[in-house]
Amino acid sequence: MNNQNVPDVIVSRLPVYLRALQRLADTGVSTTSSQELGEKVGISAAQIRKDLSQFGEFGKQGTGYHIPFLIERLSQILHVDRIWDVAVVGMGDIGHAVARYNGFANRGFRVAMCFDADPAKIGKKVCDYPIRDAKNLAQDIKEAGIKIVMLCVPASVAQDVADKLIEAGVCGILNYAPLKLIVPSQVRVQHIDPAIGLQRMTYYIP
Amino acid sequence: MNNQNVPDVIVSRLPVYLRALQRLADTGVSTTSSQELGEKVGISAAQIRKDLSQFGEFGKQGTGYHIPFLIERLSQILHVDRIWDVAVVGMGDIGHAVARYNGFANRGFRVAMCFDADPAKIGKKVCDYPIRDAKNLAQDIKEAGIKIVMLCVPASVAQDVADKLIEAGVCGILNYAPLKLIVPSQVRVQHIDPAIGLQRMTYYIP
Repeated sequence: MNNQNVPDVIVSRLPVYLRALQRLADTGVSTTSSQELGEKVGISAAQIRKDLSQFGEFGKQGTGYHIPFLIERLSQILHVDRIWDVAVVGMGDIGHAVARYNGFANRGFRVAMCFDADPAKIGKKVCDYPIRDAKNLAQDIKEAGIKIVMLCVPASVAQDVADKLIEAGVCGILNYAPLKLIVPSQVRVQHIDPAIGLQRMTYYIP
Repeated sequence: MNNQNVPDVIVSRLPVYLRALQRLADTGVSTTSSQELGEKVGISAAQIRKDLSQFGEFGKQGTGYHIPFLIERLSQILHVDRIWDVAVVGMGDIGHAVARYNGFANRGFRVAMCFDADPAKIGKKVCDYPIRDAKNLAQDIKEAGIKIVMLCVPASVAQDVADKLIEAGVCGILNYAPLKLIVPSQVRVQHIDPAIGLQRMTYYIP
């Protein structure tokens, strides 16, 4: 259903709009404007209108956007009008943190499985699930039909593990390891890299 | 020195270019083109040329970019031609993970202090430093002149802690808590939110 020609840079802003709209909805507000939304997310009103116009007509001149409708449409566009089962691979500090992250509610994701290779960790419970043996990673992921993984293993093994995941059918990897994964073109990778976030701030600090 | 009129969306891409250039340099390459760089980062060559042109002339038609020079200039522009002392506040799973993150090397940051309010954690060593008592947070941050913090406390206390940090002179917060911080206009916040990364991928997964 999605327009294949929408630049990724526009796609990257849609989750930010959706999060801001959900926060507005949580405060009981039912309409907003591109100006108000722009102030919330730090993007110009003109850019927001241009971005959204790639996907249809969402607002009316003078009355703005109906928030529940725009949330519904953005959720459909981003395919988060459903719940995706997500696996966490690598149960060190960061794996535990993302498995327990309480910012996923109503945003389309549910941590369904956790894996580690360390016998001392296997079987221990995190979020009501026992940590699974990484030996069965490919098989368990394949059987469960999991498409999205949060990869929290050390950098030294991240590429190997990613290769196995992709072979098992994973097509989206949120990569916490400090390296660039090499993946086939049909697989999406988002790299969570705190240094990028820090550098984006130091630009503004003299 | 920075051009105040450069849109933040352009600023946000500079760290991504810098990371790709540093990776290229690590492989021993000394020149690149906007085409090659674009393929590495998933941004068009035209956009890269346009972004960089905001800051000066960095490449030559036909010969491309000299990587060490472009790294040096981007580091200056992003103010990471120095080492920033960073504090980690909140030493749960995520705090431990970011304190130990080994992706900061040569990127302008050094974890200099860690804080927690839990008496069971205070004094324990992480990265050769003992965890400090959050009671002394404002004073310690102020005395050390720390401007940048990675905020890893629970959402329920994140705004309170952020307020204290800002009063102590912090002007950049990398926020791991699942909420929007309200901060004065001179303070920069970057929110690390895995759900945003995941939604950016599900767009492409039918």
